[in-house]
This record gives sequence, C-alpha cells and structure tokens, in this order.
Amino acid sequence: MTAAPRTRVRRLPELAGSSREALDAVLDAALVAHVAVVEDGWPVVLPLACARDGDRLLVHGSTGSRLLRALAAGTPSCTTVTLLDGAVYARSAFNSSMRYRGAVVYGRYRPVPDPVDGLRVLTEHLLPGRWDELRPPTGKEVAGTSVLAVPLDEWSVKVSDGWPEDEPGDLDAPVWAGVLPCATTWGRPLDAPDLAPGRRPPAAVLARAGTAR
Amino acid sequence: MTAAPRTRVRRLPELAGSSREALDAVLDAALVAHVAVVEDGWPVVLPLACARDGDRLLVHGSTGSRLLRALAAGTPSCTTVTLLDGAVYARSAFNSSMRYRGAVVYGRYRPVPDPVDGLRVLTEHLLPGRWDELRPPTGKEVAGTSVLAVPLDEWSVKVSDGWPEDEPGDLDAPVWAGVLPCATTWGRPLDAPDLAPGRRPPAAVLARAGTAR
Repeated sequence: MTAAPRTRVRRLPELAGSSREALDAVLDAALVAHVAVVEDGWPVVLPLACARDGDRLLVHGSTGSRLLRALAAGTPSCTTVTLLDGAVYARSAFNSSMRYRGAVVYGRYRPVPDPVDGLRVLTEHLLPGRWDELRPPTGKEVAGTSVLAVPLDEWSVKVSDGWPEDEPGDLDAPVWAGVLPCATTWGRPLDAPDLAPGRRPPAAVLARAGTAR
Repeated sequence: MTAAPRTRVRRLPELAGSSREALDAVLDAALVAHVAVVEDGWPVVLPLACARDGDRLLVHGSTGSRLLRALAAGTPSCTTVTLLDGAVYARSAFNSSMRYRGAVVYGRYRPVPDPVDGLRVLTEHLLPGRWDELRPPTGKEVAGTSVLAVPLDEWSVKVSDGWPEDEPGDLDAPVWAGVLPCATTWGRPLDAPDLAPGRRPPAAVLARAGTAR
C-alpha cells in the first residue's frame, strides 16, 4: 500500500486537471494567493499578491513580515488560488454549488536569485505595463523586500464549470435552475488626490478598465 | 513580557480595525473563505463556502472530505477571507499595492447542533432567497453534510482603501497615479440545459444579476 500523494484531488476528482497548461491558466488568472504555514502548531494563512514565472510561483512582501521571514527560511507551505466564476442554482440545496477554478501548490519557498527581476514579473502581472513607466527600485527598497518563489513541482488543479446536477426526482420541481456567473471586473480609474493636473491614465490602465479577469 | 496575541495586525497596523462591525462587514461580503489546518506537519489550505451566523462563521462540505473531518474533530484552524477591491498605481513599484478587505479567524470548528438551520443560513447567504424555493434536505443529505462553525472569538480585520502613498521625491515623476477599482460582479443568469421550457429566473436571481458584492 502506497500513500496517496497529497495533491491527489479526493473530492469530485472528475473536476481535477492534470496538465501544466490547466495549472498555469489558473495561476495566471490570479492576483492573490492564500499562503499557509505552520506556526507553533497552528496554521496561519494570509493573502499575498502572486505571479507565475515559468515553473515557479512568485510572492513578495516586507522582509519585516513574520510570514515572509518564515517562508524565506523554507518552512513547509501550502499556496492556494481560488477564482469564483458563478453560483450554481440546482433544484435542491444539497446539489447547489459554485463554479470555480482552483489550484494548490505545496512546497518550500526560497528567495529568488534576482529579486529585481522577480519584482518586475510581479509588477507586470499585477499592474500590466507599469514596470517601464516607473523608476527602478532603489537598493534600499530591494533590501526591504522579500521576493520568494516556490517551484511548481507538487500541485493540483480543479475546475468546476458545469451545470446543476440534480436528482432525477427533483427535475420536475417547479423552480428555475441554472448558473449566475460572476467575475472580477475592473472599473474606471480614479486619479490620486495629489495627481498633477492634466495627467491621464496610460493606455494599459485604460485598456484594463471594464475588463474581467 | 507578554506574548502578543496572534491576531494583532503586525504589518501596516494603521489599516487594522478593531470593531466587530468591521469584521462582520468583511465576513458578510465573502462567499468563500480559505481554511487552513495542519496535516502531518504541513499546512493545508482549501477554499470553502462560508456564511456568518451571528457570533460564528459557518462552513459546510461532504462528511467524506478529509478537511471537513479534521475540522469537525476540532483541529486548530485559521480561516482567512480576502476581498480584492482595486490596484493601487503608485509612482514606484515599491509603493504600489492593492485595495482589499481581509479577515482572519483562529479557532476550532465544531459541528453545529442544528445542521438544517446551518444549511439554511449558508444557502441564503450563497443563494439569497433560494431556501424557501427548494424542497427541504432529506435525512440522507443532512447525514452526508458536515455543517461546522468556528466562534468569532479570536480574529483580526484589515481594510486597505487608500491612495498611493509615494516618496516625496517621486511626486514629480511623469506618470499617472491612482487606483483602478475592481469588484466581483454578477452577470446574467444562464438557464440549465435541462430546464423546462418557459421557466424564468426568480426575482432574487434577477435582482442579483448586474450587481457587485
């Protein structure tokens, strides 16, 4: 008897994907990951901005953050990304559910060898087109930022994009059934209160406004 | 010297809230929580649909789920809710950030004494107005569902809703600065493929479509 790998999807395995393409698609659609570590025997899970960079997932934060310090030291971690895509209205509460995409990555984070390049990848993922508009980070800023990566070695991915699956006896219930989709959408840009008069949002920001991710 | 409580917000404490009203507002805006436990020394964090019910937070899932079984047994847990509200375009990568609302709850989940009422609260939070349209859950369905609650005793809440905070020397940089808001918005309802002809979405679904949460 061999131990099942912890990345085997146990619940609703028919929703599990096995391709790196599926994993990459979910990670690339996410801006925030929930990263968990163990501290004094208790789990701690906090949100961190994230960006995939090839075969690794990047996060960053202050070197003063306890979570970032624990991650930088290589503590065991679990990183979970969840994108909610809709509410599934079945004909019973029991069969009602959500449409979602999710990924889980286990592993140990390590500082990246080139933190400025890591910051570039993170910034371009979170704020597309922004890196080249901004001055380069100072040495002090780089020193104060922990840029970490976990390899995409041990992972699972799950996509729920279906329809209500009702009991045969419920199909005649006198209720509507279907899906109410949801998406994270960007609104219209808001100028900073201290913005110089006449300065307009760049094309990349205007292009993002009104789109969903 | 006393140990700082783990719910003390250490990073950017000026963003921390201390009122139950602030906590409740964040939890009530969330449909999904990320719940972490420790398994064989490694953290595990998975998304679960959630709903606040007074002074406790409810989650539910299959009694066959390993996570739900561990939670039902009272294993130490950390539950984190994160709502992304926008991207903050500062005049440096270092000061760029996100608008978000977040809550963290530590504690041990326990099965609720009245699981059908818990399912009602969860269903009404996830699918407002739906409970009374549906048949009651069967005994078998209730037996197969784990409905758990963690008390809102040990928690923190943090709201980042500000503007770019730039270094004085960056204020003259020739770039736009501001916030691109984002929100989770509901789209138009999609009929299930097996829906009987002529059946229309109920008012509660139509009212939700097009709104943000």
